[in-house]
Amino acid sequence: MSAAVLYHFPFDPGSRSARLALGEAKIAHEEIVVRPWEPDCPVAGLNPSGMPPVLQTTEAGKPLTLCEAPAILGWIEDKQKTPLLLSTDHAERGEARRLTAWFDRRFTDEVNAVLLHERLEKPLLRLGPPEAKALRDGRAALKDHLAMLEPLAASREWLAGRRLSQADLVAAAHVSVLDYFGEISWRSYPSLKLWYMKLKSRPCFRPLLADKFQGLAAAPHYADLDF
Amino acid sequence: MSAAVLYHFPFDPGSRSARLALGEAKIAHEEIVVRPWEPDCPVAGLNPSGMPPVLQTTEAGKPLTLCEAPAILGWIEDKQKTPLLLSTDHAERGEARRLTAWFDRRFTDEVNAVLLHERLEKPLLRLGPPEAKALRDGRAALKDHLAMLEPLAASREWLAGRRLSQADLVAAAHVSVLDYFGEISWRSYPSLKLWYMKLKSRPCFRPLLADKFQGLAAAPHYADLDF
Repeated sequence: MSAAVLYHFPFDPGSRSARLALGEAKIAHEEIVVRPWEPDCPVAGLNPSGMPPVLQTTEAGKPLTLCEAPAILGWIEDKQKTPLLLSTDHAERGEARRLTAWFDRRFTDEVNAVLLHERLEKPLLRLGPPEAKALRDGRAALKDHLAMLEPLAASREWLAGRRLSQADLVAAAHVSVLDYFGEISWRSYPSLKLWYMKLKSRPCFRPLLADKFQGLAAAPHYADLDF
Repeated sequence: MSAAVLYHFPFDPGSRSARLALGEAKIAHEEIVVRPWEPDCPVAGLNPSGMPPVLQTTEAGKPLTLCEAPAILGWIEDKQKTPLLLSTDHAERGEARRLTAWFDRRFTDEVNAVLLHERLEKPLLRLGPPEAKALRDGRAALKDHLAMLEPLAASREWLAGRRLSQADLVAAAHVSVLDYFGEISWRSYPSLKLWYMKLKSRPCFRPLLADKFQGLAAAPHYADLDF
């Protein structure tokens, strides 16, 4: 099989979703870290949005470029003989898609756009120190989202039902970035913590646990499988 | 076949995506208009986000509730014997998913959250008159997005390639709401205009052209197939 190359930024939830899905599907690939805010970022010429993740691969001998996590996750699922990251049950497929949309839209708007802006973008782009009010608002929104996920994790094996789905990978992609920055109070969400421990122990997760953010060590439990 | 019921708000782009996809797939269904900001909205008990679209149907004799456009569009595609709203070509499938994600995320954030907030949410929720600066910002963002779409429409039969895909339906769902409010200067985008005329002539589009917004007539060309 010819090689696939994933351009990603390690603390971008979309990039993490793509890495987890490629890992779960055991698709051999090379990973190239990009910094999309720098002028010579190679992704600028590949994706009209200028953002990772972008996967370059081949299909039937033809080059194939896939931009954004939904295109990469969709392609991975298309290649499977039997469903891998979606259930065969219609209700669970629908629930996985609902939750994926929830993270891509509401979680991104209400949590990431506030909290990751303060904790991640500001130091990277040298936009000054975080603002106390934005941190408070982002953390309050994060609590609401985790409180919404906790009963799902308590009543189901995986977030969308009886089997692991793309919803688990996308949710873990978002949660793991915030966990690196020490933003998740796991003791308040015991069922979600068990769900996250199960995910963290999977081989697909290992590369993410080795990621390092410039000048800031991960929260002490970040890479612990038994935290 | 047992009936399907779609709960939708006629000027919500996600709801329009679902109606167009159900129409294109010729899935018989009843449509119930909801007003998600009202306390007794039936969608509040069906979708954790409280928002339309929600489709209630049955699969293999069991009730099935699908929340949000990606779950509804995904289910429609799952039911097809041969792909209907995605190409069989991997590159075109990826491109359709990229464009769908673009509308669901960037177009929604940069155009709808500004321009539809001023033109649609403010009158509905009685939040006062539109602000000139927000209208200017939203219109500038809309121009950028349409200018990005114009070369795609000029060089391809449909937005993602040689065949109609979910990207066309999702893009048209967004564009058609803004067109109702007279926000699209079609003469600046001749190829996009041809694309939109092709879409508007399809039977799936007919119900949308009959929609009425309270107290505001559609732009004169809105329901014209040959505008």
